[in-house]
This record gives sequence, C-alpha cells and structure tokens, in this order.
Amino acid sequence: MSYKAPVKDMLFAIEHLARIDQVAQIPGFEDAGLDTAQAVLEECARFNEEVVAPLNVPGDLHPSTWKDGTVTTTAGFKDAFRQYVEGGWQGLQHPVDAGGQGLPKTIGAACVEMLNSANMSFALCPLLTDGAIEALLTAGSDALKNIYLEKLVSGQWTGTMNLTEPQAGSDLALVRTRADKQADGSYKLFGTKIFITYGEHDMAENIVHLVLARAAGAPEGVKGISLFVCPKFLVNGDGSLGARNDVHCVSIEHKLGIKASPTCVLQYGDNGGAVGYLVGEENRGLEYMFIMMNAARYAVGMEGVAIAERAYQHAVAYAKERVQSRPVDGSVAGSATIIHHPDIRRMLMTMRAYTEACRAMALTGAASFDAAHQHPDAEVRKVNQAFYEFLVPLIKGYSTEMSQEVTSLGVQVHGGMGFIEETGAAQYYRDSKILTIYEGTTAIQANDLVGRKTARDGGQVAKGVASQIEATEKALIASGSEGARSLAINLEKARKAFLDVVDFVVDTSKSAPNDVFAGSVPYLMLAGNLVAGWQMGRALLAAQELLTTGSGDKAFLEAKVTTARFYGEHILVKTSALRDEILHGGASVMALPLDSF
Amino acid sequence: MSYKAPVKDMLFAIEHLARIDQVAQIPGFEDAGLDTAQAVLEECARFNEEVVAPLNVPGDLHPSTWKDGTVTTTAGFKDAFRQYVEGGWQGLQHPVDAGGQGLPKTIGAACVEMLNSANMSFALCPLLTDGAIEALLTAGSDALKNIYLEKLVSGQWTGTMNLTEPQAGSDLALVRTRADKQADGSYKLFGTKIFITYGEHDMAENIVHLVLARAAGAPEGVKGISLFVCPKFLVNGDGSLGARNDVHCVSIEHKLGIKASPTCVLQYGDNGGAVGYLVGEENRGLEYMFIMMNAARYAVGMEGVAIAERAYQHAVAYAKERVQSRPVDGSVAGSATIIHHPDIRRMLMTMRAYTEACRAMALTGAASFDAAHQHPDAEVRKVNQAFYEFLVPLIKGYSTEMSQEVTSLGVQVHGGMGFIEETGAAQYYRDSKILTIYEGTTAIQANDLVGRKTARDGGQVAKGVASQIEATEKALIASGSEGARSLAINLEKARKAFLDVVDFVVDTSKSAPNDVFAGSVPYLMLAGNLVAGWQMGRALLAAQELLTTGSGDKAFLEAKVTTARFYGEHILVKTSALRDEILHGGASVMALPLDSF
Repeated sequence: MSYKAPVKDMLFAIEHLARIDQVAQIPGFEDAGLDTAQAVLEECARFNEEVVAPLNVPGDLHPSTWKDGTVTTTAGFKDAFRQYVEGGWQGLQHPVDAGGQGLPKTIGAACVEMLNSANMSFALCPLLTDGAIEALLTAGSDALKNIYLEKLVSGQWTGTMNLTEPQAGSDLALVRTRADKQADGSYKLFGTKIFITYGEHDMAENIVHLVLARAAGAPEGVKGISLFVCPKFLVNGDGSLGARNDVHCVSIEHKLGIKASPTCVLQYGDNGGAVGYLVGEENRGLEYMFIMMNAARYAVGMEGVAIAERAYQHAVAYAKERVQSRPVDGSVAGSATIIHHPDIRRMLMTMRAYTEACRAMALTGAASFDAAHQHPDAEVRKVNQAFYEFLVPLIKGYSTEMSQEVTSLGVQVHGGMGFIEETGAAQYYRDSKILTIYEGTTAIQANDLVGRKTARDGGQVAKGVASQIEATEKALIASGSEGARSLAINLEKARKAFLDVVDFVVDTSKSAPNDVFAGSVPYLMLAGNLVAGWQMGRALLAAQELLTTGSGDKAFLEAKVTTARFYGEHILVKTSALRDEILHGGASVMALPLDSF
Repeated sequence: MSYKAPVKDMLFAIEHLARIDQVAQIPGFEDAGLDTAQAVLEECARFNEEVVAPLNVPGDLHPSTWKDGTVTTTAGFKDAFRQYVEGGWQGLQHPVDAGGQGLPKTIGAACVEMLNSANMSFALCPLLTDGAIEALLTAGSDALKNIYLEKLVSGQWTGTMNLTEPQAGSDLALVRTRADKQADGSYKLFGTKIFITYGEHDMAENIVHLVLARAAGAPEGVKGISLFVCPKFLVNGDGSLGARNDVHCVSIEHKLGIKASPTCVLQYGDNGGAVGYLVGEENRGLEYMFIMMNAARYAVGMEGVAIAERAYQHAVAYAKERVQSRPVDGSVAGSATIIHHPDIRRMLMTMRAYTEACRAMALTGAASFDAAHQHPDAEVRKVNQAFYEFLVPLIKGYSTEMSQEVTSLGVQVHGGMGFIEETGAAQYYRDSKILTIYEGTTAIQANDLVGRKTARDGGQVAKGVASQIEATEKALIASGSEGARSLAINLEKARKAFLDVVDFVVDTSKSAPNDVFAGSVPYLMLAGNLVAGWQMGRALLAAQELLTTGSGDKAFLEAKVTTARFYGEHILVKTSALRDEILHGGASVMALPLDSF
C-alpha cells in the first residue's frame, strides 16, 4: 500500500491555523512563507513517497540484525539514508551557521510527519540526531560544537539519547552509569544503557551518544546527573575518525513493532572506560536532557499523527475496494464496497477526524515554538513559550493515545484480512504501541501537565487557553451554519468540563495528590481532546470563510467542515465522562489494598 | 508468567449471579450444584495451569507450520490435547447419551474461560469442535450422528466451521462453493474456503469439516446455502478410517496473533470432488450454521474475558515487582513498586473491573442459556431465551472490545518492557485483536443487536432488561452504603442513556436506517457497558450481604465492593457520550462524499 503525503491538509493547517504569514514576520524566517512551505512539502512528499515509504514493510519483515557487536539495518535503509542526507533533510530546522537550513518548526514538523508516515522505524534515526543537536546547541562548549555539530546537522554522523538503564526507566534518579574524570578533562564512562534507539547501525560512519551518568562525588538522585558526549569513534584534531571508543552494542531487542529500528543494549567501559566529554556543567545533565526530550516528545506526538494518517489511508483504500453486503439504506441494489456501510464510515471518519485534529494541534504548537524561540518581542516569546509548554504533553500524550485507537480501527476496517500480516494494517497497530511509552509514558506526560503545566501557575495558562476556545465558540455561533453551531455546543461542554478539572487540579493537588494523579491521564485526554477539537473549530471557520469567498478547493473545504463537525459529535463528547471520572472517581482508584490485587 | 485461574471469582459469580442453585433445579442438572461447580473448576484450573498455560509462549514463538499439505502444531500441543481428551474436557457440556458429561453451560463457560486464559491458540481447536457437535445435534440425521457424534464429543476427532471464502466474509450470500449431488445421496464439494481454524493439524486422527456450500439449482443468496459434513478421512461402516477425502490444506496464514492456531486455506475437490454429506435439509444451511455460530459467539466473548484476565494477572505481577519513583503522596520514603502509583492503579483497576464485569455478564448469560434449553416450564424457557439472545451480541461484542483496551493497558503497565516480546504482555495485545473480528465483527454483532434484538420486538426485551436494572438500583440505594449509592447513581444515568437509545433505534431504524446503523456499535458498547455494570451492581449487593452476615472471604468481598464502585465511576460514565454520539451524530457519519476520503 503506497503512501500519499496529505500536503493539502498540511498546507491548510500551516496557512490558516499555524498562520505561517505571522511566522514569516519573525526575523530569520523572512523567506519561510507559504510558498516556501509548499515547495519544501512537495519535495519532501516526493522523497518520502518514493524512497522511504517502500521500505516500511521490508523493515518489518527483515528487521535490523545484530552479530558480534555489529548491527546491520534492513536492506535499502543505508541507501535511503544516504539520499536523506544528500537532500539536506537532517538540517531542515537547524541553524544556518551550523550548516542547516534554518526553517521554522512550522514547516519542519510537517516534514517530520511525512517521514514517520513513510517509515517510523527509519525516521527514528534522524529524530534522535535532532535531539543530540538540540542538546549541543543549548549546552555544548564551542569545542564540542566545532567537532560534532556540523557533522550531525549534515547527517554524516547520527546521534542517540542514552537515558534508560535496567533499573532506571521513568525514574532517572536511579541512573548508575559512572563517569570518572581524567587528567585531561575528559571522563571515562562505565555502565549499561538499554533501549537505545539506533545505538548501533551501519547507516553513518560515526554515532554520537549523549549519555546521562554520574560524575564521582555527585549528589544522589536527579541532582547528581551529568550529560556526556561519547562518540562511537573518537575524533582526531583534524576531524577524521580515530580509535574505536569503549562503547559496544551487546544485543538488540526483539520487539512488538518498529522492528527495523535497532533498540540496543550499550555497554560502556568494559575495556578500560568509554571516553566521554562533559556537556555544559556537571550535575545539570537532566536539565539539558529535558531540552532534547521536549523536542523528542513533540516529535513522538507527530509520530502519532503520522502513523494514524498512514493507517487511515490504508483503511480507506481497502474500504473502497472490498465488496461485501448490501447497504442498509438500499442505496445500492446488490453488494457494495464496504465504504457504503455506516459502521465502516464511522470508523473511517473517526480515524480521519482524530488525525486531522491532532495534526492541527501539533502544527499550531509548532508556530508557537517558533515565536517562543525567535520572536523579537520578549512578551510574545513568553506567552508563546507558556502555550507551547502546555501543548507538549497534549501533543505527545493525546496524539499517541489516539494513534492506537486509530490503528486498531484500521485493522478492524479490514476485517479478517486485517489480522493477516501481509495486509499491512497490523504493522501500524504494532508500531504505534511504543508511542505511548517512549520519551515518557502517557502517565509521565500527564504528571507534567498536572504539576508543571497546571498546578504550578494556579491554572493560569490553562484558563487562558479556555478563554481562547470560548472566543472560537462565539465565532462559530456567529458564523450561523448548522455545522458550526453543532461544534460550538460540543466545544462549550468540553471547555466547561476542562475548567471544572483545572479548578480541581489546582485546588487539590497539594491536599489530596492521590486523587489528582489518579485522574491525571484522564485530564490529559480531556485537555488534548479539547485543544485538538478547538483547532478543528478554527479550521471549520477558516474553511467556511474560504467557501464564502469562493477561493480554495471546494470539496476539500467542505470535507473539512464535515470532519470538524464529526469531531465534535463523536470525539469531543467523550470529555464529560472524563470530567466525571476525575472529579468523582479518585478514591476508588486507590481503595483496593495491595494484597487484594 | 504463570496463570492462576480465578476460581474464587468464578464461583462467586456462579453462586450469586448465575444462581447455580436455580440451575440445579432444572431436570438433568440435579447434580450440577455449587459443589460440583467447585470440584470441576478446581480440577479444570489444575489442568490448565499445569498443562496448557505453559504452552502459550512456545506457541507464539514456534507457531504451527505447513509443509506439503501437512500442518505440524507447536511441540507439546499434541500431548496436551491428548490429556485434554483423556480428561473428558471436550464433552463437558455435551449430552450424556453422546458420551458427554451433560453439565450446564453455567459451569462449562467458566472452564472455557480457563482454557482460553491458559492458551487461546490451543483453545480454538476444542471451541470449533463444540460448534460442529452443536450443528450435528441440531440438524444431523441419526446416521450422521451415529458416525460422528461420539468421536467428536470424546475429542478423538475434531471439528471445523467452513464459512468464509475469499469473496464471502461477513456477507455469506456470496458463498460459491459447489455441492453436486451423487447417486448415493452424498455430494461432491468443489471450492476454496479460507480462514479455517484448525482446518488441518496433527492433534487428532480425523477432522470433521462443517461446510457451507450451494447445491446444484439452489437459489441465489443466503437462501441457497446448505450445510455439509466433509471429513478429512472418509469413515468406513465399522467406524474405522477409510480413504483420504479430497479436501486439502494448501497454506496457512501468517498472523498478528494466535499464531499457534493454524488458520488454513482449504481446497475442496481439486481431485474429483470432496465427499460431503448433507446436514438436515438443503438450503437451510445458514440457519444451522447460526446455531454453531451463536455458541461460538458466546465462546469468543469468553475468550475476551479470558485474555483480559491473563493480561491483568501479568500486569499485576509486574507492578508488584518493578521499583520506580516515589509515590506522589509521600507514603513511601524512597522508590516504591509501581503499584503504589495512582496511574498504574487506575490502569490495573480498569483491567480488573472490565474483566470481572464481563465475566459476570457471561456467566449470568450462561445460566439463562441453561434455563432456556432445559427448563420444564415453556414460559421460563421463552423468557430466558429472549434474554440470552439479547445478551449474546453484548457478550461477544463488548467483552472482546474491552479485551483490547485491557491488553493494551497491560502492555502500558509494563512501560518499555511491555514492547519487548520476551516480556509476554505484547502477545495478549496481538492475540486479542482477532476477537472483535472472527465469528462476526463487532459491527455484525451490533447489526444483530439493532435489528433482531431491539427493533424487531419494539424494544420490549431491552426495556425489560432496563426494568431489572432499575430494581437493582433501588436495592443498591436501599442498602445504604456509600459505594452502593455511587454505583446506583451511575447505573441510573447509564440506564436512562440506554433507554433513550432504545427508543431512538425502535423509532428510527426503518425511516432512517443509516442514522441508526451509524450508531450501532456505540449502542452495543453502551448496552454491554450497562449490562456488565448491572452485574457488578448485583455482585456488590451480594458481597455486602455476605459481609453483613460475616460469611465468606472478607478481603475478597470488600474487593468486590470496591471494584464494582470503580466500574461505575470510571466505566459506566462513558455511556452518556455514547448516547450523545448516537442521538446527534448520525448525519456526520455519512456526510462526507466518497470522493473526499
């Protein structure tokens, strides 16, 4: 099943929701207007459709293999990655003075979606490199930047994030990898890291590991963790590769999905110590790592959108082709393609509405990221930073949870064929399952939403978002159409449910933390549902406006109105139950004694 | 991860919800009281825990293989099946005069759950044999019964259901397999059947295929389908095996889950025709097949309960062992096992509440089946038959949908380890995905619920169920406890939502079928949620009563009260959104033009 990038929907969101015209007014982004977006997206679509997407099934059937410390990726990956590098795709969002193209995230994020739709396993390698680049840009010394940055931005070398250890997953306080300082200022690393994506592979000549470890004498817990660069091959003064470093891949995992992406166990220091270089200052590693992680969390949210889109396309193609049974309304005399059946339609519309809404949320978030980072006005930066930070757990948590519902529906649309691996629908179902886990589980995102993003400021940002949503409701009502009215009603109910929960979180998180955290994931799901639905409200308004003026693609715009209304009537309505569960269900979550489980 | 059969919870449901004392008053079931249930369940638990469960992971790792028409099952399956047969388990629910034990479904269903928890792939072989037995009992001639019945009931031979063809899945009107009548009264079959579970294997000496096919000159569509027995080996007059019949397994599928269970493509008649024998009368095949299918649908619902139970046990074990992070309430000074964290608890309680509620619904349904079939009073039979038929789509549809949510949560509880196949949680996630598809997809169950079970009688049975639920609400309120009151409130809201939808279905299914069928699956989910929740209400009342009288296991009974309350506060609350979606969302399901997908 081939992949066709949804360039039209992406450009609609970039133009009307992310407002690329405003992004292009920010110094540094002057050339990044709608025309640039269109040109980049079209070229990106071509590359991913033709080069990367065809490797998705082969990657699942013939995963990366490990032998004697060497990892061989699926046939074709190395060549595709070479083309990715040659096309300059790795540097898309990175600074021009590091060899990148300096495009805004508003454009880059759409490219991330395409790459992940085409092939999530493949896309993970560049995604991790992006994280390493972010960390070096933020906290790396000039010396480190000089050695590593350009090669990472070009894609000549790739990067990894080394956080997890067997005893330290969500809880990084338990990290035990040790870093011993050497006379020359470098360190020697000793320890075991697990779940290291692309920790070893054959697609690049060097791999730059960003590693959390404890320097000698560091305090216990998260305050004693430092961040180190530890390359696979040491780098000589002239930039050429030197000796093999003492970090080795001792095995790769046998996984449910994303099988082509090697998930490595890395052993540091079994032969005298792996040479590592401190990034920034000692004991500030977690802070730097969060920078990488926030970028990665956003990207994982995009992976959710991406795999949902691919599953949707797959299901639509099957539903338009498979003939089975007569329509219940008698609209076709004999057997019809199954897309005529209401429940198939409900499933496809659900998949479509979730995907479009989460894409809209993510691209809107990308624009706020761009403003937060590069806008000349400090107040604008601040407002956008707060909004973006509020969105990150929603983009990560909600978009990935929804992707599992969507890929499950995708299998279901295929009926018995969906269960047969050759059909391809099952791969999305398997691949998507990692998304609610890595880069912080949904519960970790929800803790972030409850603690840092809601309780800490007394719900101020959350209520600000609600006010903006209320304005959209009013605009919908004022627009006068039946679809807009329906969506406004459902948005209003959802917003009120959200405000009830925000008050509850703010009032209760100190006095009854168990009650609040028992509802943290439902709160995340409510907030994500609402904010994504709000973007559908904005999309509906924009589409109606264009229809009125007669500009744009009529069928596309009418479909947007219909899809937005569907989102309200079938997805936003879930929020009331989440509110009830959060406000009234806390006690029963924790009531069962441990021995009774 | 070992499996421990939840005998205590099963016996609680059998005693207090299914009311085995009443079942044991039905002629033929006099010996099938609580003591018998307990003895059978304990022996069944031992067998499944020790013999069948240890083969679950090996079956996933080393699925059945096909070579030159022969299927070899996973090492150990053949021996375990021999023990299954020797233990008399195949005949548990079948008539004594066919060599069975004649136990009620109220007991047999619990045994079906255990077998499926232990090993769903293994359990499918006996499940299909049960279907073949049912069909022969219902419609087979004495001659056919004499030849096949005892050998199927003993488990010496196994059975299959042959419905699906490449072009005929949910839509059996499209069946093309041909049956040519021979001079001796037998038929010769020609055609291709796909998705035939255990269509070929090495665990029994003969395989008895029940096959849908068209006799020459039969009408088109479903009214021209007949049912045939077609054995792998023809049977001589003395019961010994004769010539190999012309039905051959030409391949098996590569599937997402239940990998040990061979899913066969069977080719009939490539060498002159497969000898088949008509079951009952020509052109009544679909009617007979529905008998098998209704039994099978119930059993698939039980598979949902079974795999949810196994996933729950797996997740609890991990949550009690894995140490990570400090509890948010400060109840433990350092890092704690993750079962201390509210979101892990929420997930485990969700898994538990779904599983117990669906088990209770299924066992209650089993008791009504027993009364419907064997009660001496015709009126009692009729009432129970109607109730049972209303329940079947809920047991099949709701329990399997919930099992996918539960197994997904099971992976999530394990965090990153859940994605690693060796952990075992992913297998349940993969295995469960077939349950909403085979024996009729959830949409097919929902069509049945809307059409035959609700609209046809003007909602009479549905409203009768609602009245019974209302009585339970009153009893809960009257009991005076806080937990009971909370559950009563949530039951009432859910019941009212259900009644709104029943009225809508009855009023609208003729005039606007698309609107009703657009909400058919949400209606099924609403009804299943409510009826399962109702059983939790009955369970809560029984548990409270026992706690008051001081009899029974206090910790178990208190856990039941807590779990029931949780079900109300976290699961029943979903019903309002389903109602809103059904009543107000029909139009947007079908509004998008086909070209816009």
